Amino acid sequence: MTESLAFDVFARGCASRETLEHATGRWGTLTLAALYAGSFRFNELRRRVDGVSEKMLAQTLHALERDGLVHREAQPVNPPRVDYRLTPLGESVAARLVELIALVEGRMPEVLAAREQYDAR
Amino acid sequence: MTESLAFDVFARGCASRETLEHATGRWGTLTLAALYAGSFRFNELRRRVDGVSEKMLAQTLHALERDGLVHREAQPVNPPRVDYRLTPLGESVAARLVELIALVEGRMPEVLAAREQYDAR
Repeated sequence: MTESLAFDVFARGCASRETLEHATGRWGTLTLAALYAGSFRFNELRRRVDGVSEKMLAQTLHALERDGLVHREAQPVNPPRVDYRLTPLGESVAARLVELIALVEGRMPEVLAAREQYDAR
Repeated sequence: MTESLAFDVFARGCASRETLEHATGRWGTLTLAALYAGSFRFNELRRRVDGVSEKMLAQTLHALERDGLVHREAQPVNPPRVDYRLTPLGESVAARLVELIALVEGRMPEVLAAREQYDAR
């Protein structure tokens, strides 16, 4: 019973691989990590995720919203205003990504030393 | 002093963003998570990371090796044999990814319900 319900990201066709890719893709990680700090409007988020295009950010948010990680809220104001924030599930995922980011940022001296050694071979 | 040494994945040009992308890219996550279980030969790894092409796996391993996350060891045997395994830094990164994967796999029923609701709108 449990076995038949199992998801496996290593299996090419498993839906969990798609969700993992949304959460860890080029822009998914940074978008989720940015939203971990609070809700953002689209253009604020675009500035925070330095380098993302309007199109890529819209696609990323769309996929994350569909997977239930991000909540999109159109405010009933004029001019129109849309806020994005994490759902509880999105917060759980983002918390892991924020930890990963802190680890990577903190270990960059080691990474750069490894690169130097590699390139000198 | 501390400030000038800081790395920030949100900054477009920061080297840490590149390393984060290697670790969380389409194949980086699965490759590191696979190696968390032990050392693999190239073709074993290719079978484990279902769907990866030879070229993409080679590129992924190359980037991870250069960043000091993966160790490549050519065994002095005939026919030649190459083993890949995580470095201690790679293990720290992979541990976070394995946690993230377990979370995503475990929450897929929620994700699928969210998708259904989204698509029905």
